[in-house]
Amino acid sequence: MTSQLLEINQQYCLIDCGEGTQYQLLNLKAKTAKIDYIFISHMHGDHIFGLPGLLSSMSLLGRTKELYLIAPAELRDVLIAINRTSQASYNFPINFIETQDAYATQVLENEYFSVTSVPLEHRVACCGFIFREKKKKNKLLAEKLPKGFPFELMKELKEGKNVDWEEKEYLVEDYTAEPTAPLSYAFCSDTAYSENILEHINGVDMLYHEATFVESDIERAVKTRHSTASQAATIASKANVKKLVIGHFSIRYKELNQLLEEAQSVFPETFLAIEGKIFTV
Amino acid sequence: MTSQLLEINQQYCLIDCGEGTQYQLLNLKAKTAKIDYIFISHMHGDHIFGLPGLLSSMSLLGRTKELYLIAPAELRDVLIAINRTSQASYNFPINFIETQDAYATQVLENEYFSVTSVPLEHRVACCGFIFREKKKKNKLLAEKLPKGFPFELMKELKEGKNVDWEEKEYLVEDYTAEPTAPLSYAFCSDTAYSENILEHINGVDMLYHEATFVESDIERAVKTRHSTASQAATIASKANVKKLVIGHFSIRYKELNQLLEEAQSVFPETFLAIEGKIFTV
Repeated sequence: MTSQLLEINQQYCLIDCGEGTQYQLLNLKAKTAKIDYIFISHMHGDHIFGLPGLLSSMSLLGRTKELYLIAPAELRDVLIAINRTSQASYNFPINFIETQDAYATQVLENEYFSVTSVPLEHRVACCGFIFREKKKKNKLLAEKLPKGFPFELMKELKEGKNVDWEEKEYLVEDYTAEPTAPLSYAFCSDTAYSENILEHINGVDMLYHEATFVESDIERAVKTRHSTASQAATIASKANVKKLVIGHFSIRYKELNQLLEEAQSVFPETFLAIEGKIFTV
Repeated sequence: MTSQLLEINQQYCLIDCGEGTQYQLLNLKAKTAKIDYIFISHMHGDHIFGLPGLLSSMSLLGRTKELYLIAPAELRDVLIAINRTSQASYNFPINFIETQDAYATQVLENEYFSVTSVPLEHRVACCGFIFREKKKKNKLLAEKLPKGFPFELMKELKEGKNVDWEEKEYLVEDYTAEPTAPLSYAFCSDTAYSENILEHINGVDMLYHEATFVESDIERAVKTRHSTASQAATIASKANVKKLVIGHFSIRYKELNQLLEEAQSVFPETFLAIEGKIFTV
């Protein structure tokens, strides 16, 4: 089952929602109430069967805050069919943003980050998602400021404005430091090997790319429109990403090291997406 | 979440299928391949959200054997919507038997047992299910038979026919014992207190009846069309059942003993339906 929880400056995005996601979030002590954005790559059950339950639970637990649901249009049909038959509805508004798989397009933008959907190549319409932090504000060097320095002026300094206080000028360059570079994360699953995504994911700090099979099972990968570990690593290498996380492994492999080693032989900075594991981009 | 696995003479019935049921079956080492009958009481998510995933997994794991799905007609709409959008289908036939909540009716009968659906009183159409074993064959007293006694004749004795072998007559009354009495199990959830079910469940060996609330929260029970522990026990008592299992407890109760004690004060032979617990009828 696929599901990832992505935190960007205390904004929480859930990416895909396989069955049992809500229980696993509970086990990992992640608060579902904090999730404001849910991204769904495609309509296969291992990516969506946890969503009806998660949405119901959010509603039962008292959510009233709007939720952004970025997903294939067909998902709406399924949710409507479920709610109609159970005579249920959610106690919070859903802002439904339809993805489409004809071309890459920005699907979300807020104060902290923007998200672009990118068509992948799978058996059904499927999109990857690229999350990009916006340029951050300067870091305030608070320890250099005198006691009692007004909070409002601190904000202005962070925003890059020189300020005057008690007959002294405080320059941005003296009292702030450059912010850390904005980070980027790309989620690409499920997909066959596709160089079409390279231009979109080029240089991202972290790429999650599915690696369902090992290279010796490439016929299965081609037939089912999935990738091998070696193909995932090739994409990572060609796209000049900084780190690669592979996942969505076929249950046929009891030993995941073969997938890791295969990918690392092409792209050394590869890691396995293991249940419950936390990565810092 | 509600789900129960009922075994009757190595026939496996799943009753309701909340999210995560397939994983819990896996944890409990119950083989989903052996399940030939799935009963769904009603369309609320805590009783059905595990079904799409279970059916997909059955198909992926190679099932070709027919599955009986005894459920509200609306469930078909949901499964069709899901399969259409995911462009998936099951590799096994589903024999869909629609329940209806206007009156009690037999929904299934096979060699070993029959099942009657009984209308319950909930916020949406909802049925309970009563499982009755058929009269079993006589028990063969094999130790009394001579060596080499033909297997075919053993079968006839079990079926209640006297047989001749090597110039001797073998009487049913000498070589078989009466079978154990056929057992019965009633599943009644979700439902408000309803004496309409009494005639149908009268005398069953085991009754599962929901007990969402304690009696002091009876207003909530009435409003949400659920039962209190005391009401479940009253039904058990009035229906002269042998044992009562209560479940479907509201998450508001951290301590389930209060529900058990409340029910036992009315009907002593009450037990709690706890995750993973196995009862013998």
